Amino acid sequence: MKIAIVIFDKFTDVDLFLMWDLLNRVRVPNWSVKILGEKDAHVSATGISVTTHGRIEEANFSDAVLFVSGQGTRERIADENWLKKFDLNAEKQFIGSICSGSLILAKLGLLEGKQATTYPTSKAVLESLGVEVVEKPFVANGNVATAGGCLAQQYLIGWVIENLADKNWSDLILKSIQPVGEGLFFNDAENLMKLYAQMTKANAKV
Amino acid sequence: MKIAIVIFDKFTDVDLFLMWDLLNRVRVPNWSVKILGEKDAHVSATGISVTTHGRIEEANFSDAVLFVSGQGTRERIADENWLKKFDLNAEKQFIGSICSGSLILAKLGLLEGKQATTYPTSKAVLESLGVEVVEKPFVANGNVATAGGCLAQQYLIGWVIENLADKNWSDLILKSIQPVGEGLFFNDAENLMKLYAQMTKANAKV
Repeated sequence: MKIAIVIFDKFTDVDLFLMWDLLNRVRVPNWSVKILGEKDAHVSATGISVTTHGRIEEANFSDAVLFVSGQGTRERIADENWLKKFDLNAEKQFIGSICSGSLILAKLGLLEGKQATTYPTSKAVLESLGVEVVEKPFVANGNVATAGGCLAQQYLIGWVIENLADKNWSDLILKSIQPVGEGLFFNDAENLMKLYAQMTKANAKV
Repeated sequence: MKIAIVIFDKFTDVDLFLMWDLLNRVRVPNWSVKILGEKDAHVSATGISVTTHGRIEEANFSDAVLFVSGQGTRERIADENWLKKFDLNAEKQFIGSICSGSLILAKLGLLEGKQATTYPTSKAVLESLGVEVVEKPFVANGNVATAGGCLAQQYLIGWVIENLADKNWSDLILKSIQPVGEGLFFNDAENLMKLYAQMTKANAKV
C-alpha cells in the first residue's frame, strides 16, 4: 500500500506530523508512507524545513493521497501549474484532506455537489468554490473525505488505515495516542509493542 | 518568555510537533520557542530530520523546559555526559515531559518522592527509577509536570501557556486544534485569527 502526504510551503506543522506519525505505526508488509512536494524540502508555517521523499506526481500512483493544510493552501489553489500536476482518481484512490486542505480537493473537482468540512477560517473560501460546508469533524463521500480541526485527523487517518489495512490496526493506532487514563491504559503496554516493532525492510525504505 | 523543547535522536514525531505547533500559536511580546539538541539536527523515530535552534545547555536559562519522548529516551538516560549538561531549577523554571520524557526528569532527580505519569511501555522503567507512577494523563507537582499519551500534550502545554502567558491564550489555543463540531465551531473563526497573525519580530527570529 502506497500512501502519499502532499505538502507545500507554509503548511501547519501538526497537520503533517500527526498523520505522518500515525500512518507510520502500521506494521503490515509493503506499507509505505511518503511525504511529497514540488521541491526537495518545504518549510512549515513556523519555519520547520521538511525534506520530501518524492515529487507530487507520485500521488497519482498512490493508494491514498492526503493533503495537509495551512496558510500555504491559499497560494496552492491559485497556482494552476501546481494543480494540473494531479491526475487523481476517486474511483481507485482514497483521497482526503485536513482543515484547509479541502480547498485543494475542491479546486481539483473532487467535492462537486458534495458536502465537506474544513477549518473555521477556511469555510467562506470553500463555500466560494461551490461546496456545501457542514459543521462536522469528518465527512466521507465514497473514497473522498475531508476533516476539520487538527485533531480530526484521527477520523481521517482511522478511515485510511481501516480501508487500507484493517480495523484492528486503526483501533490500536488511534488508542496509542490517547491520554493515559482516558482511552489508553497501562495494561495496553503489551499490545502497544506491536506498533513500535522494528520497521520491516519494506517500510524502512521510506 | 523563553521556552525550550529538548529533542534527541529517535524521538516520537508527534510528541515534538504537537507541542511545537501549539506553543507557536501564542502571540505575546518576546515569546520565544526553541528546539534544542546536542547536534545541529536530530532524526526522529520515523526518519524525519529536524534542525535544532540551539544546544541543550540553553535549557538551563529558559523559563520552561519540555522533554519529548520516543525510543531515544532509553539511550539518553544511560548517557551521563548528556545528563550532566542540564542544570535545571524547579524553583524558577517550569519543567515538563510527555510520555517517556519522564524517564529523563527522573534521572535528573526532578521526580524524587513524587507521583508522575508516563507512556504505558515506559511504566516499568520509570518505577525502577524510584518514581510512583499513576494512571493519569497529567500530573503536576509545583513547577514539575509529567504527561502520558501523546494527546495529553494538551494538558501539559495548556499548563505551560497558562503559567507563562494566561488562561485566555491557553483556552483559545487548545480550542484551535479540536475537531470541528466537537469543541471548535465555525463561529470561532474571528477569534482564531489572533493565532495566525503575522509573527512579531521577536518571534520571527526563532
